[in-house]
Amino acid sequence: MFSARKILHLESEFQMHRGGSLPSMDLAYETWGKLSPERDNAVLLFTGLSPSAHAASSGEDPSPGWWEEMVGPGRPIDTRRYFVICVNSLGSCFGSTGPASINPTTGKRWRLDFPVLCIEDIASAAYEVVKALGVLHLHSVVGASMGGMSALAFCTLYPKAATGLVAISSAARAEPFAIALRSLQREIIRSDPKWNGGNYAPEDPPILGMQLARKLGMISYRSAEEWARRFGRERTGAEHDPGDSFGIDFEVEAYLEAHAVKFIGGFDPNCYLYLSRSMDLFDVGEHSGCVATELGKSTVSRALVIGAETDFLFPVNQQEDLAECLEHPDREVEFVVLPSIQGHDSFLVDMDRFRPVIARFYDRP
Amino acid sequence: MFSARKILHLESEFQMHRGGSLPSMDLAYETWGKLSPERDNAVLLFTGLSPSAHAASSGEDPSPGWWEEMVGPGRPIDTRRYFVICVNSLGSCFGSTGPASINPTTGKRWRLDFPVLCIEDIASAAYEVVKALGVLHLHSVVGASMGGMSALAFCTLYPKAATGLVAISSAARAEPFAIALRSLQREIIRSDPKWNGGNYAPEDPPILGMQLARKLGMISYRSAEEWARRFGRERTGAEHDPGDSFGIDFEVEAYLEAHAVKFIGGFDPNCYLYLSRSMDLFDVGEHSGCVATELGKSTVSRALVIGAETDFLFPVNQQEDLAECLEHPDREVEFVVLPSIQGHDSFLVDMDRFRPVIARFYDRP
Repeated sequence: MFSARKILHLESEFQMHRGGSLPSMDLAYETWGKLSPERDNAVLLFTGLSPSAHAASSGEDPSPGWWEEMVGPGRPIDTRRYFVICVNSLGSCFGSTGPASINPTTGKRWRLDFPVLCIEDIASAAYEVVKALGVLHLHSVVGASMGGMSALAFCTLYPKAATGLVAISSAARAEPFAIALRSLQREIIRSDPKWNGGNYAPEDPPILGMQLARKLGMISYRSAEEWARRFGRERTGAEHDPGDSFGIDFEVEAYLEAHAVKFIGGFDPNCYLYLSRSMDLFDVGEHSGCVATELGKSTVSRALVIGAETDFLFPVNQQEDLAECLEHPDREVEFVVLPSIQGHDSFLVDMDRFRPVIARFYDRP
Repeated sequence: MFSARKILHLESEFQMHRGGSLPSMDLAYETWGKLSPERDNAVLLFTGLSPSAHAASSGEDPSPGWWEEMVGPGRPIDTRRYFVICVNSLGSCFGSTGPASINPTTGKRWRLDFPVLCIEDIASAAYEVVKALGVLHLHSVVGASMGGMSALAFCTLYPKAATGLVAISSAARAEPFAIALRSLQREIIRSDPKWNGGNYAPEDPPILGMQLARKLGMISYRSAEEWARRFGRERTGAEHDPGDSFGIDFEVEAYLEAHAVKFIGGFDPNCYLYLSRSMDLFDVGEHSGCVATELGKSTVSRALVIGAETDFLFPVNQQEDLAECLEHPDREVEFVVLPSIQGHDSFLVDMDRFRPVIARFYDRP
């Protein structure tokens, strides 16, 4: 198996945003392209809740990444020109330290003893990777969904660290509708008897709870319009199990089932819970009471905010609020709403619409 | 305890729309007002998924009904003028026969041996009550949500039985987004080990599964706009259980919990599953392939279609489609979109907006 993944191991104590600390920390990351002699071409890419650091293929790992069409030679974020860094989020389970990792103090998995995770911690951890790579200043930070939140947190925690910001289908604060959806996903996982208060056996995790939570995720990530066009009222034609009055009948049910089964293989349930909660807790304006004040401290001089019309998890009005809060005399802000029908997931799917907007941002000399 | 509930017991076999039959049937209903000597003032009111037949208070039962502000003397559906009939849906558990009832053939509860339930069965069962009350022709049929579907089914099954139709936040066919949400609710209930393949003890039902499904229901019944205004990011301030990293923190979480706990006391899980599925299966146009053709057969001469702007479970575009399909040279169709922020539930909550629209329909001489 190929891997382009590198690990940064930090032995120093890492203070968490809401208290507690990690005595040491691993951070998995990948890079593409080369850092220029002037060290001015680095792009830090934050991921959504579930991906690894493998955003795109490379010579070392030819398997397609989660944003394959966006990152690479000749792609919108052109790795012939830019040095791109993607970090597996702190709290995740693809090489970075998280609740599934061994707590070096106890020699056992962290599980629910892992400190409360915040988006700010994800941003701070990524900054450790940036520094370790010798990058003093970033061309830009970019992220979609939770990754956009992380990019915003980065710009408030390190207001002078980046010149550009690209926030896609993101938000400066979690709103109650999205909190409700995520809270219910977490409760579904925790209600699976196999979750066992977080103490499930690694080889026997709460798969059913994870599948149901994933289905709710998929419902919140796509759109009614897309599914009406794609599935309509088509039936699978599959026979139900004998005696199962409520088996899969409609195509949309089969679609959700297939995605849920595919997803849960790789993701640790406790990590999912922590990452999910970190989004609820996120509010850029928490300290000063004002998102605009917080973002005003950043020296970012170019910002791009993109939303998808059919996204109801991170809806367009939140993108508009964010773009307004980013307004500053010393900053150029572009706000783009795309008529994509794939809802929150549009940035992963509707590449024909997203590519040119991202390319325009990164094409600038 | 007061009750205005009456029971119609039918000993004749009732053929179900998709096969199977009930050897006998109970139907619980309430009435308000008096049938006129001309028998031309009867209004048949269909309920949503969860209510009983108790739509409004009366002398016999002063407790407020689920549509208290809409039905009664001096109310929009004025019971000094109209004879209003509300039937507990077939398949439900508030006096009408459903999966929780005893199958007279076996002497045991129907549970999953209950035949597949369709919206058409709910409409046909209600028609039995109408006939038993001596009503030959209805002034109108009215319903919201599943009740609107039932009203549409009634008008296609009995095209000459009613002069008026009021369909609120309803749909002529279930779309895949709503199917996905309901399918997941059902799977959540069925995943509760206590559901036990439908064979739970009546005194020990799958409460947790029902609560989680109810929370998903609440999320789909309200709107992001309402919750943003109502809850924002307010915290409960409640202490978590010791060791519970994921307890209720935000007000919106406490709100969902309170509603879920309140709901599940009264509702039988198997009945919920059957009623929920009946909505997925509903498609007026199923037989001829065309909703407009089916609705064109009805002699309804006045139709009112109402939608709420923020309803994403039965969205405005579906109301618009329905209103268009109802267009007919011999029919007056009014289509109203209300700017209510309470989503699908608006018809139960935003009475100041809904009352005048309904009143205008029923005020006509």
